[in-house]
Amino acid sequence: MSNELLKSDVTAEALIAKAQRDGVETMWDRKAAQKTQCGFGEAGVCCRICAMGPCRVSPVPGKGAERGICGANAGTIVARNFVRMIAGGASAHSDHARDIVHAMHLASAEGPFKIRDEAKMRRIAAEWGIEAADTKETYALAHELAEMALEEFGKPFGTQRFLTRAPQQRQDIWKRERMEPRAIDQEITTIMHSTHIGCASDIDSLLNRGMRASLGDGWGGSMIGTEFSDILYGTPKACASESNLGVIDAEMVNIVLHGHDPNLAEVVVVASKNPELLELAKSLGAKGINVVGMCCTGNEVTMRHGIKIAGNFYQQELAIITGAIEAVIVDVQCIFPALPALAKKYHTHFVSTSQKAKIAGDMYIEFSESDALNCAYGIVKTAVENFANRDASKVEIPNFKEPTIAGYSVETIIDHLDKVVNSQLEDKLGTVKPLSDVIYAGVIRGAAGVVGCNNPKTEHDLGHVTVIKELIKRDVIVVVTGCAAQAAAKVGLLTLEAKELCGRGLKEVCERVNIPPVLHMGSCVDCSRILDLVSRVAVEKGVDICDLPVVGSAPEWMSEKAVSIASYVVASGINTYLGIIPQVLGSVEFTELLNEGVRANVGAVYVFEKDPLVAVEKMMVDIEEKRTALGI
Amino acid sequence: MSNELLKSDVTAEALIAKAQRDGVETMWDRKAAQKTQCGFGEAGVCCRICAMGPCRVSPVPGKGAERGICGANAGTIVARNFVRMIAGGASAHSDHARDIVHAMHLASAEGPFKIRDEAKMRRIAAEWGIEAADTKETYALAHELAEMALEEFGKPFGTQRFLTRAPQQRQDIWKRERMEPRAIDQEITTIMHSTHIGCASDIDSLLNRGMRASLGDGWGGSMIGTEFSDILYGTPKACASESNLGVIDAEMVNIVLHGHDPNLAEVVVVASKNPELLELAKSLGAKGINVVGMCCTGNEVTMRHGIKIAGNFYQQELAIITGAIEAVIVDVQCIFPALPALAKKYHTHFVSTSQKAKIAGDMYIEFSESDALNCAYGIVKTAVENFANRDASKVEIPNFKEPTIAGYSVETIIDHLDKVVNSQLEDKLGTVKPLSDVIYAGVIRGAAGVVGCNNPKTEHDLGHVTVIKELIKRDVIVVVTGCAAQAAAKVGLLTLEAKELCGRGLKEVCERVNIPPVLHMGSCVDCSRILDLVSRVAVEKGVDICDLPVVGSAPEWMSEKAVSIASYVVASGINTYLGIIPQVLGSVEFTELLNEGVRANVGAVYVFEKDPLVAVEKMMVDIEEKRTALGI
Repeated sequence: MSNELLKSDVTAEALIAKAQRDGVETMWDRKAAQKTQCGFGEAGVCCRICAMGPCRVSPVPGKGAERGICGANAGTIVARNFVRMIAGGASAHSDHARDIVHAMHLASAEGPFKIRDEAKMRRIAAEWGIEAADTKETYALAHELAEMALEEFGKPFGTQRFLTRAPQQRQDIWKRERMEPRAIDQEITTIMHSTHIGCASDIDSLLNRGMRASLGDGWGGSMIGTEFSDILYGTPKACASESNLGVIDAEMVNIVLHGHDPNLAEVVVVASKNPELLELAKSLGAKGINVVGMCCTGNEVTMRHGIKIAGNFYQQELAIITGAIEAVIVDVQCIFPALPALAKKYHTHFVSTSQKAKIAGDMYIEFSESDALNCAYGIVKTAVENFANRDASKVEIPNFKEPTIAGYSVETIIDHLDKVVNSQLEDKLGTVKPLSDVIYAGVIRGAAGVVGCNNPKTEHDLGHVTVIKELIKRDVIVVVTGCAAQAAAKVGLLTLEAKELCGRGLKEVCERVNIPPVLHMGSCVDCSRILDLVSRVAVEKGVDICDLPVVGSAPEWMSEKAVSIASYVVASGINTYLGIIPQVLGSVEFTELLNEGVRANVGAVYVFEKDPLVAVEKMMVDIEEKRTALGI
Repeated sequence: MSNELLKSDVTAEALIAKAQRDGVETMWDRKAAQKTQCGFGEAGVCCRICAMGPCRVSPVPGKGAERGICGANAGTIVARNFVRMIAGGASAHSDHARDIVHAMHLASAEGPFKIRDEAKMRRIAAEWGIEAADTKETYALAHELAEMALEEFGKPFGTQRFLTRAPQQRQDIWKRERMEPRAIDQEITTIMHSTHIGCASDIDSLLNRGMRASLGDGWGGSMIGTEFSDILYGTPKACASESNLGVIDAEMVNIVLHGHDPNLAEVVVVASKNPELLELAKSLGAKGINVVGMCCTGNEVTMRHGIKIAGNFYQQELAIITGAIEAVIVDVQCIFPALPALAKKYHTHFVSTSQKAKIAGDMYIEFSESDALNCAYGIVKTAVENFANRDASKVEIPNFKEPTIAGYSVETIIDHLDKVVNSQLEDKLGTVKPLSDVIYAGVIRGAAGVVGCNNPKTEHDLGHVTVIKELIKRDVIVVVTGCAAQAAAKVGLLTLEAKELCGRGLKEVCERVNIPPVLHMGSCVDCSRILDLVSRVAVEKGVDICDLPVVGSAPEWMSEKAVSIASYVVASGINTYLGIIPQVLGSVEFTELLNEGVRANVGAVYVFEKDPLVAVEKMMVDIEEKRTALGI
């Protein structure tokens, strides 16, 4: 495995040089063209919520306007903007989850949407109180459960069903703080309402409402997205893969799956194995069809099928610039609007497929769950046919890839832990007790979830890789999702061999349990797996989540989804370290609320720290303080 | 009645002078402090949707950055911002409507929430297919209907029930354009999703999705808000009132009801008549309790109880500056965050009451529907007790008020029309045929809905009053809601005598039907009454809405709600004239789409015209072209 932090840079460098030769534009060119970014926007003090504005107040108190025309001050403006970011992010996760549940509602024994983890379906059906959950006919139960799940998005009464997975202490806090999310969509609507001109101006109230909507994401939409994807496509198991742009194969038809929703990706994977299409590929001189993943659609299929990871967010343009991609097939979220024009500079087809994300300049082939296989077949065929148009002289694939193990669902982690239990005999199977025991014993000092995107405000992947390496060195086990997981994968951190980078305690645990020190838990909606895992540890130990030596980290986040994730992680009791500072510094009050004040409400805070090394030092202090408080 | 356009200015002038003497700040001071508003924001080309930004592209093509870091160009950025304004507005209306339905779900014969228009409830129950809608026990039916209405916000399948009120041609267009709104909240969530980084960039698709969400407002949330408020509080009937700050009474306890939700206002009106509280008021030297309305909460209680109108949006500070207000009681929306500080400069209590709109610096007395009367009693008592703190030397109430007739629900308009039918004998009662007949006959040239807010970008009320006066002069009947209605009221346009300002045809109709030429149809959610009325005329004549000589106008809008209203009005087939230009001019393509392109989809467009006189000329050309096309 590589010891070099910046291998990803080398990949980027070569392809950026190629981009310049090819006369194409990348995000770095556009970043440069922005010149200085707007100081008001960066401080969060710019308001365009009504048409009396735009208003902006001075980020420096006493200098310039102190209030917008309606009287909103910096605190109100900043808080409203922040809370609306939560709304955007929670919407993205949840609206994706809705599509998964609709696909499950269409599931049948004939497929293509089938129940692939029936045991999990029956567990959740029982959890949700469906009668005869263990005996009902599979698809009757699937449809009943899907309808119940769809109600979670819009039911007029009651709160999210999955909240009861949290420790009772945490549920009590949510009740006290009036933070229990009701219907997922209602929470979005009501914060859009509260942030309308002339509604909420109190920053505590705004953050409270934003957190409630974020909990509707983490314990609602995202958790439904994860669990129902598992039921439909199988719960991930540890599986081998490879990562980085080197997985693109010069001799094959290369298809990049990019976006977030596994509904399309799953059937594309199926279609890519279709004998007719393979035959067609061979007839055109290709050795086969190579489907590779990018961003979270990539993570979904890597976790379940070992599909190779071409890269993360910042590499979406670089993949096309290799000149070896026949098609980029996208669904929703984090897809640069720049891609269609870039694809046209090569032979690449840019195929967008979702009504929710029609991208100007695309080849639009609408994906419909009700005609899924035909649709995927057509899309893959288009890609294969396009192999004939590839210009070999334009192909340049960086020779970087690393072995990767992904697929660490909570169930798979427990399966691994069970093997340790077996040898001890005294403990029950199927629990996280071995994990909580090694944490309590101090063999592992704590756990960290490192998640999030890339952001050109910082050197790509550097934050992710630094935080992860420094944590495992200090005996903190790391779980990863999203682009952070892919950053780790690309430098070989998702391997058994990465134990060599760990402190002695963690290394021993990795050896004993036979896991990497950095566990790939999935896509960004799969941050809900982290909530589930941490909750199980807390419940097992009889403590609240905020008592555990656990931290969250998003070193390079950029999307509204990340703001929602950070918010539900904090609201769940986990201090969350952000390497990119949210656009809130224009309000001292709101910044203090995030960094300290909210602790009184939920027992955790948002920590802002750009320097990954300093961030890790702070996390370690945090973890050790938690240990001391627990007396462990 | 007054012939003077700018009477409202005289009101403002005196109180602004008082504000200066009192050393208090108003919106005009804050407007001045903003200096030049940001050109990027004004053009709509500033993007803060992810944390790679803020990005901004040049509103002038070829000058400065052309794309944000993700590659979003001016069109995408402008469209996303516009569509998110729809999301904000639709959320505000619909989330308010939800509270009305929840109150109806609590209704009982004992009150305070009662079924006051049982006939309407049974009509809607039948319309929605409830069995035995005409015989079921009142409150059993109320609760069943309320539950059905709550499902409209979150149901997993199907589209909005009220869409079938539209002419079939219009429904067909919505189907063709995939614009039929599903659950109200889902449409909000899904446009927040589509506007997330890396989702939709195609401007047609973005506008299409925004329009769908707006239709979920107009034909969903707002229509539910209106209809269920009528069931609960009574369908408005023509009633006399008075308007402008002169309705504040120096000898009484003055309570301003401000906001949008009638749930609170209705019980405050009840509490204000409580003998104990009246006695208390008298014991403190007041002659009684004078509840006056402001913005749409005002409109709600004016329409149903004749409560006097203190003013519209721009007057919310001026009312406090009179020094004669014991309490401003607010619920949600359009409430300046500046009010608490202003109220503290006088003796006024600023009482906020909604969890959805906690306002910093307020006296917070949370209103709960389940304990409504007690809550209202407590709030009114607080206000009455505060009379003792009034400083007579600080009181200055402008001596301006005008008689006003409000209460023109569709039902009331039809009742008036029925009286004409009676004399003709040949026609059915209970229809809009007499109205459509006079339009088709050319006695009235057409109809206009003039709606919306105030905006300090233009001289307050001038746009409203000019547009209305010029239209009635040209024999166009005008219906009004919101702050536009209050602007008309304050200059005496909502009177039978205003017929003298009309053309000959309209004057004759006003005399014959015994109505003002300008009909106050309610609050901003009551724009749904306009949709209902226009649909009835179209259905009656067997044409689509877009065929009728009808226009929409928002001369001084400022809120996101207005963007949602404009969008559903256009999507319903009515050309809509905006006197404030939305923040879209930074994209030539999106501007052209709004001003012309969308006609191909929905048969109507957004027209931008700042000058009210020019706007009226354009409306008249529009109306006459529609007449010509109809051959009338």
